[in-house]
Amino acid sequence: MKYSSIYKTALLTDVLPFWEKYSIDPAHGGYFTCLDRTGKVYDTDKFVWLQGRQAWLFAMLYNTVEQNEKWLDISKAGINFLKRFGKDPQGNFYFSLTSDGQPLIQPYNIFSDCFAAMAFAQYAKAAGDGEAGKIAEKTYQNILERRDDPKGKYEKGTGTRALKNFALPMILSNLVLELEHVLPSDQVERTLDTCVDEVMGTFLKKETGLIYENVNLDGSLNDSFEGRLINPGHGLEAMWFIADIASRRKDMELLDSAKATVLRLLEYGWDDQYGGIFYFMDAKGHPPQQLEHDQKLWWVHLEALVALAKMYQLTECPKIWAWYEQVHQYTWSRFPDPEHGEWFGYLNRQGHPHLTLKGGKWKGCFHVPRALYQCWKTFETIENKNTLQ
Amino acid sequence: MKYSSIYKTALLTDVLPFWEKYSIDPAHGGYFTCLDRTGKVYDTDKFVWLQGRQAWLFAMLYNTVEQNEKWLDISKAGINFLKRFGKDPQGNFYFSLTSDGQPLIQPYNIFSDCFAAMAFAQYAKAAGDGEAGKIAEKTYQNILERRDDPKGKYEKGTGTRALKNFALPMILSNLVLELEHVLPSDQVERTLDTCVDEVMGTFLKKETGLIYENVNLDGSLNDSFEGRLINPGHGLEAMWFIADIASRRKDMELLDSAKATVLRLLEYGWDDQYGGIFYFMDAKGHPPQQLEHDQKLWWVHLEALVALAKMYQLTECPKIWAWYEQVHQYTWSRFPDPEHGEWFGYLNRQGHPHLTLKGGKWKGCFHVPRALYQCWKTFETIENKNTLQ
Repeated sequence: MKYSSIYKTALLTDVLPFWEKYSIDPAHGGYFTCLDRTGKVYDTDKFVWLQGRQAWLFAMLYNTVEQNEKWLDISKAGINFLKRFGKDPQGNFYFSLTSDGQPLIQPYNIFSDCFAAMAFAQYAKAAGDGEAGKIAEKTYQNILERRDDPKGKYEKGTGTRALKNFALPMILSNLVLELEHVLPSDQVERTLDTCVDEVMGTFLKKETGLIYENVNLDGSLNDSFEGRLINPGHGLEAMWFIADIASRRKDMELLDSAKATVLRLLEYGWDDQYGGIFYFMDAKGHPPQQLEHDQKLWWVHLEALVALAKMYQLTECPKIWAWYEQVHQYTWSRFPDPEHGEWFGYLNRQGHPHLTLKGGKWKGCFHVPRALYQCWKTFETIENKNTLQ
Repeated sequence: MKYSSIYKTALLTDVLPFWEKYSIDPAHGGYFTCLDRTGKVYDTDKFVWLQGRQAWLFAMLYNTVEQNEKWLDISKAGINFLKRFGKDPQGNFYFSLTSDGQPLIQPYNIFSDCFAAMAFAQYAKAAGDGEAGKIAEKTYQNILERRDDPKGKYEKGTGTRALKNFALPMILSNLVLELEHVLPSDQVERTLDTCVDEVMGTFLKKETGLIYENVNLDGSLNDSFEGRLINPGHGLEAMWFIADIASRRKDMELLDSAKATVLRLLEYGWDDQYGGIFYFMDAKGHPPQQLEHDQKLWWVHLEALVALAKMYQLTECPKIWAWYEQVHQYTWSRFPDPEHGEWFGYLNRQGHPHLTLKGGKWKGCFHVPRALYQCWKTFETIENKNTLQ
């Protein structure tokens, strides 16, 4: 089977049906994401990251794959739930809600807002819904306003060791393109400039070729647990966002740098003993704080596949292809669940699931279908080009 | 070798020398706790829990084992560091500090204060230091004042699902006895009453025989991730605090109930496939949120040994003895590091260290030496009694 067909088939006949069947809450709207191995709901809390991500995913598929009304309805169920219950009186999105929409956990950071903005923007496009577009734009501007103090009163740091974190510039480099149709075009380009600068000029360090999760405010390295933290999957995901920007801007230098970073992160993050990509590492080789550091997570491997497929499409580099095949073999032989459908999320270092859930507090309907979609489309382009040659 | 000798030898010739040799910071006072497998300092941040715990440990040994001036000096180094740098302007203990005492992480909960209070109280006794006694007492009263809102502005919950947490009543049941010499005696007895009520009457549930980490404010169970959370090691540690209280009060009914809970927690938490006690479990058997749920932690196994040794001393129950031998065999064959000394902290489910550190953000000079001391003294009592028979 062609690679594009593998991804397309998995997306349309395995992963989407799983979420369509098990995650919808007909009583209150929104989605259940705590699904056990068989799809059974084991907890009804609604995590706003995952509500936004699933609403985004179905609207994105409606916009790009097929104007399937069922997909639009699923997206709408999340959008309406978020519109009605998602925000606190100040307009910040909560972290979590009860199944019937009562707020559970306060907006203690701005990632809920990022995924909500993505969702409202895609839904606005899908449904031609101007109000959703306005919510997307307003949420985005609110994210920018909170940017320098994203945790507000929940910030536990004293300021003695002020660090800036990689997550926001990384997410923005993708989010701003998601919101392109609701933002002024000069703001889009300016934000892309800043994101590329930060991701490739500040968090990526030439000395090691690695992307650091936290750096000093002046961009220098900080020798602390936070400052030494490397999350290879995070870096790999960022590199496909950067590849999209490089491709859009036809910036070959940027593409080259992103390609080198993908190769470096894989060489660095690959577990030579058991295979797979480590979750957390310490740049100086010290023990990381995260007890889950050596686990193999679904999203890390899927984002690596997207980064490698896109890099191969854009550069045809044989080293990239060799890594693609290695990660493909590891990922496809371990994460999909042939028995009950969808993908396992959490493998131990040895590559066996230590939790068999299909969804939870952090795993929802997002990384699996998004990566399957991205790889499907990327391989379609690669395969069409090869046919033409 | 007699059990008492195993514990005494490990404490005095392995574990204490390790911390005496590697953890002292001659430049700024206080202790380094981030020590790699060989004892080398890999990070210099100072975590207040661990500063307090180490200062407590050496003062406790001075008070109970031997008036060794070196031990008093080591305790004093932590006490002076905490006195000078540990508190914010409101008198709350920070979570962490730089090596030279600058505050890093705010007092976002009250456990730093609990371990500081323990330290100042033991040091007061050891050094005959009235000022330290006053700090202990004041810190203790501050803990009680913050009891109903321990996280203050850092609380992320909205109040929709208000839960009470097991940690504080559990810690208080030990802390109040640690502070007995600086507190009014009626307060001590009253607090013990409350703690026993809460631990055995509220968090321990007759229906399952398990101790829940979080319950509703009215004491009923809550069907949520937090409400279903079981931490067998936490429960086992609490049961030896309760055994101490039962022993002090000659309350056989309380002792019986604690013994039954020890047996139940071990049956429930034991990993039949690989051995060892799980870290986190879900009372309904759902997937826990904690990715480290199936790991085997040093403190869990040491606290289990203390609970079992004390229970055996007090009840001579053969079932308790069978469990003691099983946990002993597992623990002593896997956690101590014969090559570089001290104990590993973090084993994977299979029982192999996935981090080889001897100390870090959460592991310091506390659970290992405290448990070795407790088991040494408990077995001495058991062995002396047997000799007399």
